[in-house]
Amino acid sequence: MTRSWWGWGEVGQAVTGEEAASLVARAAALLPDHDFTPHDPPDPASLDLPAPRVAVPPRLRAVASTEATDRLAHARGKAFRDVVRNLEGVVGPLPDVVLRPRDDDEVAAVLEWCSGEDVAVVPYGGGSSVVGGVEPRVDGPAVTLDLGRLDRVLEVDATSRAARVQGGVLGPHLEDQLRPHGLTLRHFPQSFEFSTLGGWLATRAGGHFATLHTHIDDLTESVRVVTPAGVAESRRLPGSGAGPSPDRLFLGSEGTLGVITEAWVRLQERPRWRRTASVAFASYEQAVDATRAIAQSGLHPSNCRLLDPAEAFLNAGSSSGAVLVLGFESADHPVDDALARALVIAAEHGGEASTQEPGDASGAAASWRSSFIRMPYQRDAMARRSMVVETFETACTWDRFPALHAAVTAAAQEAAGRVCGAAVVTCRFTHVYPDGPAPYYGVYAPGRWGALVEQWDEVKASVSRAIVDNGGTITHHHAVGRDHRPWYDEQRPDAFAAALSAAKSVLDPAGILNPGVLLDAGRRGRLDP
Amino acid sequence: MTRSWWGWGEVGQAVTGEEAASLVARAAALLPDHDFTPHDPPDPASLDLPAPRVAVPPRLRAVASTEATDRLAHARGKAFRDVVRNLEGVVGPLPDVVLRPRDDDEVAAVLEWCSGEDVAVVPYGGGSSVVGGVEPRVDGPAVTLDLGRLDRVLEVDATSRAARVQGGVLGPHLEDQLRPHGLTLRHFPQSFEFSTLGGWLATRAGGHFATLHTHIDDLTESVRVVTPAGVAESRRLPGSGAGPSPDRLFLGSEGTLGVITEAWVRLQERPRWRRTASVAFASYEQAVDATRAIAQSGLHPSNCRLLDPAEAFLNAGSSSGAVLVLGFESADHPVDDALARALVIAAEHGGEASTQEPGDASGAAASWRSSFIRMPYQRDAMARRSMVVETFETACTWDRFPALHAAVTAAAQEAAGRVCGAAVVTCRFTHVYPDGPAPYYGVYAPGRWGALVEQWDEVKASVSRAIVDNGGTITHHHAVGRDHRPWYDEQRPDAFAAALSAAKSVLDPAGILNPGVLLDAGRRGRLDP
Repeated sequence: MTRSWWGWGEVGQAVTGEEAASLVARAAALLPDHDFTPHDPPDPASLDLPAPRVAVPPRLRAVASTEATDRLAHARGKAFRDVVRNLEGVVGPLPDVVLRPRDDDEVAAVLEWCSGEDVAVVPYGGGSSVVGGVEPRVDGPAVTLDLGRLDRVLEVDATSRAARVQGGVLGPHLEDQLRPHGLTLRHFPQSFEFSTLGGWLATRAGGHFATLHTHIDDLTESVRVVTPAGVAESRRLPGSGAGPSPDRLFLGSEGTLGVITEAWVRLQERPRWRRTASVAFASYEQAVDATRAIAQSGLHPSNCRLLDPAEAFLNAGSSSGAVLVLGFESADHPVDDALARALVIAAEHGGEASTQEPGDASGAAASWRSSFIRMPYQRDAMARRSMVVETFETACTWDRFPALHAAVTAAAQEAAGRVCGAAVVTCRFTHVYPDGPAPYYGVYAPGRWGALVEQWDEVKASVSRAIVDNGGTITHHHAVGRDHRPWYDEQRPDAFAAALSAAKSVLDPAGILNPGVLLDAGRRGRLDP
Repeated sequence: MTRSWWGWGEVGQAVTGEEAASLVARAAALLPDHDFTPHDPPDPASLDLPAPRVAVPPRLRAVASTEATDRLAHARGKAFRDVVRNLEGVVGPLPDVVLRPRDDDEVAAVLEWCSGEDVAVVPYGGGSSVVGGVEPRVDGPAVTLDLGRLDRVLEVDATSRAARVQGGVLGPHLEDQLRPHGLTLRHFPQSFEFSTLGGWLATRAGGHFATLHTHIDDLTESVRVVTPAGVAESRRLPGSGAGPSPDRLFLGSEGTLGVITEAWVRLQERPRWRRTASVAFASYEQAVDATRAIAQSGLHPSNCRLLDPAEAFLNAGSSSGAVLVLGFESADHPVDDALARALVIAAEHGGEASTQEPGDASGAAASWRSSFIRMPYQRDAMARRSMVVETFETACTWDRFPALHAAVTAAAQEAAGRVCGAAVVTCRFTHVYPDGPAPYYGVYAPGRWGALVEQWDEVKASVSRAIVDNGGTITHHHAVGRDHRPWYDEQRPDAFAAALSAAKSVLDPAGILNPGVLLDAGRRGRLDP
């Protein structure tokens, strides 16, 4: 497969032909005056890259690349603002070198060299960050540490259903290696094909399970982290109460404390029983109440995604109001009764269910699923046509959701209306908990070529303000990176920030690891792109 | 109620009369030569206490006590070695003053005063530590900060099913305050009556749920911690991926980083449907396999406690081999099918089930439950009669359990045999996970009055060595305190120890908070009792 250097995923999967025409036709119906002329990405060879500012020491030369497309492809993540800057041919902060270590010793050698020479190190998994997490936005030289060669399952413990896995493995390759053992991690973020286990751990990624074990945190038995101060490897344990959890310091550390090169993860058998249903609600408020009741029922659906009417219309082809997509799965026992009970709860709140037989690919649930995988490619296609298309997400307690949702929607509408003239704002719950939902918003607005990044940044600042002011988290599973820093800093208790900073000062005394992410970068960093 | 100053729980609940006679008769049948003469606790007034070495500043005098029984009662936790030293009249490290703050400002004032005067502060909830966690084993003056006055539920959010609760509330008083709202925390450690929410959080306590949400960690929405460097209060969130979890640094910090004065905790409705069963197994190996299969089934029993034959015989009155106590509960739906499926799995591994009708108090499961509550009182009764009676616990992955169990049992038998002449060693699983069990061991051995502490300490060192050498954790839910330090230090990654120590240096710059717990105490602390 050939990865796109400028946009999402695989080159061969990009939106073209009929799919593009259909997208444009649907958008043009709403925006008759918009200029949908597609802008092509520049030829990387035509871009003027600064020469690398560092000389790689001999022992690392075999794993170093200063090739232009390599440096460009590693310079940014895959947020809307990243893709647009790539399309515009804007050369921003670039890694001077891309390093692809083959083992922990080479990772340690990179950290030692960079600590000594004061070179920033950006750990890089699949590069799917949407928060500026892999962009070397630092003063002075920087290298990107691409973990892609650490891609093996090293050990499988079928008795405990766990595996020791290297951090650089991409989702599909991980599952391929587990399949012969009859086991699966079943962690399927939207970025699954283009993100790595190490990246999931470093960013506390959210998987496809809508309830119960939502974050990769819950699937983690132990981690191995190479830090400039040495290797930290925790003990494989199903549960422990021995002091603060060592793993939980590294989970979510986003490459600022060390490089996660291995982990023991908890596996499952493949599900043998599955049932799905869609439930339509005329009232969004009632749909929210139904979703809350199901989240609090102890039924633990694997899927429990509430699409608001706009999301249901745009991405599931349903015009009957809000749609709750429900799914249950088990490797051990039938789940018909669980689904039936959830549908009773939904009906008590005015929901009208349509269940699917296993394997049935029709209906709102199925069309939403297939649309889900295409969304990032479609985002790129529309970005090329001067549309602002981006998402953001949060989580809050149920009592605060109505006010947060109203404020966030209003902020998005107001800001997008001001800078773009109009906008469609959609919402779905990606995950739900007994005490609150994780709402995920989409914004679709007509932009101006050349101004797209500034337009989106205004909307983003406005909705982030509303999220933080209304008790939400600045991110449920997209991570903090550099782009979420101002609001993360507000949300984070100051005393914890001080503790984290102190921890970093002993693990990364030279301050080389992903400067500017989570914490101020000291003398080296800058927050502006 | 009157709390025992020297032993477990309430004075009125102590073992006397028939219960004592029956215990002695059963033990004497096995140990005909043992001297069961009961030793009475000393009169606290007869003990020679050193005078307090600190003068409490005026603003804290109203909440300070230097009364002898207060100082004695706060000097130790409730481990076997604590109770024995109390019974022997051994005056060890004592707090100079016991302080009972009425609000966060008074907590902060204590920390400020003690930081300035270099006085150690031992945060104290219910005082049920069994790991030396509340014993002021430090050089120089020390005060105990008893949080017992912070005992209120401050706010209930019925929509999100959560409550804001002060840290010093004891289990029953917490549930009393939640009951009018139709909600419950359902966190029932064995110490429930005599331990506090703040203590549970600070020690990552395990509750009665045998699967899924086993530790208090999972029931925590946010915490408020008063540190010498200021107050850290995290945001109420059902889930978040914004950096490393702030809460997870304070959960398990055992009073070394700050004082947990409040938390938002996740509540549930009271269960309406319950089913229980006992399953007998002739083969312990098959019983373990059955328990593993149920733990991996996704059925999530609320109770899933495997008693080995010795435990089943001693504490559940069953002589039919190993007994698996199973229970399911729900506030939303019947659980008959879940129990039926679990019993099918058990039967596939040779288990013979006897189910109970709801409310039935007969059978092994019911007798084990009632025995569970009495165990600490019985431990005290036997300690008074020169018996070594103590427990220890761990967790490990399933693949390692057979070797760990064999090594731990052998170490306990060998050490107890050497120092006591003989021993009964029992094992039960208190909690089980898809990837491993949390085994909990009991040791019953004839001791010598005056040598009991040394005898137990030898056994403890031996089994702790076996646990750590065989991949277990030194504690699944009893915490680290001072007594587990040597093995905790081995288990903990060095880089994490350095990070934790750095975090402490900014949160508690004077190093006054519970010196010697989790981390070396610097110039002040000593590890020897």
